[in-house]
Amino acid sequence: MNKLYVVGLGPGDHKKMTVEAAGILDKCEVIAGYSVYIDLIKERYGNKEFIVTGMRQEEERCKRAIEKAEEGYKTAVVCSGDSGVYGMAGLIMELCQERENIEVEVVAGVTAALSGGAVLGAPLGHDFSVISLSDLMTTWEKIENRLKCAAMCDMVICLYNPSSRKRKDYLKKACEIVMEYKDWDTVCGYVKNIGRKGEECGILSLNEMKDFEADMFTTVFIGNKETKKIKNQMVTPRGYKI
Amino acid sequence: MNKLYVVGLGPGDHKKMTVEAAGILDKCEVIAGYSVYIDLIKERYGNKEFIVTGMRQEEERCKRAIEKAEEGYKTAVVCSGDSGVYGMAGLIMELCQERENIEVEVVAGVTAALSGGAVLGAPLGHDFSVISLSDLMTTWEKIENRLKCAAMCDMVICLYNPSSRKRKDYLKKACEIVMEYKDWDTVCGYVKNIGRKGEECGILSLNEMKDFEADMFTTVFIGNKETKKIKNQMVTPRGYKI
Repeated sequence: MNKLYVVGLGPGDHKKMTVEAAGILDKCEVIAGYSVYIDLIKERYGNKEFIVTGMRQEEERCKRAIEKAEEGYKTAVVCSGDSGVYGMAGLIMELCQERENIEVEVVAGVTAALSGGAVLGAPLGHDFSVISLSDLMTTWEKIENRLKCAAMCDMVICLYNPSSRKRKDYLKKACEIVMEYKDWDTVCGYVKNIGRKGEECGILSLNEMKDFEADMFTTVFIGNKETKKIKNQMVTPRGYKI
Repeated sequence: MNKLYVVGLGPGDHKKMTVEAAGILDKCEVIAGYSVYIDLIKERYGNKEFIVTGMRQEEERCKRAIEKAEEGYKTAVVCSGDSGVYGMAGLIMELCQERENIEVEVVAGVTAALSGGAVLGAPLGHDFSVISLSDLMTTWEKIENRLKCAAMCDMVICLYNPSSRKRKDYLKKACEIVMEYKDWDTVCGYVKNIGRKGEECGILSLNEMKDFEADMFTTVFIGNKETKKIKNQMVTPRGYKI
């Protein structure tokens, strides 16, 4: 049985990978991934064969990796963060649906909600929702409804893909929806380039977040009613009476 | 400045930790944690001083760890999964609020939503909510409302603490609430003892999940409308047209 690994890299830095993920990449002969993430690991794994494609070429990349695995090469598809959270694991499984000669192993990684959360402090100390603002494959109505529902029940909200060149005002629109249910001074935070060169973070009110310029490498956190700023960190208490 | 690390272990097995977390535990002199999690790592770190307390003694445990760090010992508080997601990071920051001589570093880990997701396949391929059914520090009304909202907008829902001796029927109650909005045959999954001895997983319909006997080491996943079963794995597609 040929094995295909789908590996979550975490933010990208070797030390933020799991010990298991690092071990699997060490032993693989072929590594497939989005160019930005391959660049992050290429130096360390220079002796491998790489399958590198750009954005929106996920399907082609996964198909080529599946072929390599079928040819008998130890192959890994890498994703930033976790391999399952908006990652390639689902797509790989759909593509391998009819193939009996291949076994897919999903290797979890630290997704941006967690790695970004650690940079900010502890924003995810209570129930939370992870919502992507990308409407490439999801209707904006659905995104809007999810934002509304998550805000209505006062969950912490973590936003992925808050902005891109074509979607400059999406974060603003999202904050406006959330602000119908949460106070304007709800504690929010952002992290850019988590665990990478140029990492930058900040804590803002929801009203300030509305006008914040995020990019596609930014993760945004919107607190719940109890979320507070402690020593310049964003903390959502679990509920201990201290 | 004395440093106190709050480290997410992941499911418990050394290889599921990040490289960074493993390195920090290696160099620490004192490790504080809940007895069940200390047991998972004790063998490997036998030469350390351990601060071990039981459930519901989190505050005492954290205070003792803070004291050790203040005395100059390299100290880590460990949590299963991530250190921020229902973890000790927030409590530690609250307790260190007035202390100027201590710096807290949060080290992320793979939380059960991700590690359990990898065991099941790729249930978190699209927007999701993480909700704990424990009402020790949260009212049941709030939990109920969050379940309702997350179900209403068809997010994938990952349930932590679905059951305990005193809360035997909570998972049933939760599934009944969710079933007001999601179909009875929505694809669901569970994983018990993720990454540990006795790991066990299964895929059920929402209607079957209602009567499933979970325990406190079980993580439950409730899919969205698109979630499907592929080769006995639970997959929530991101939306690629394949």
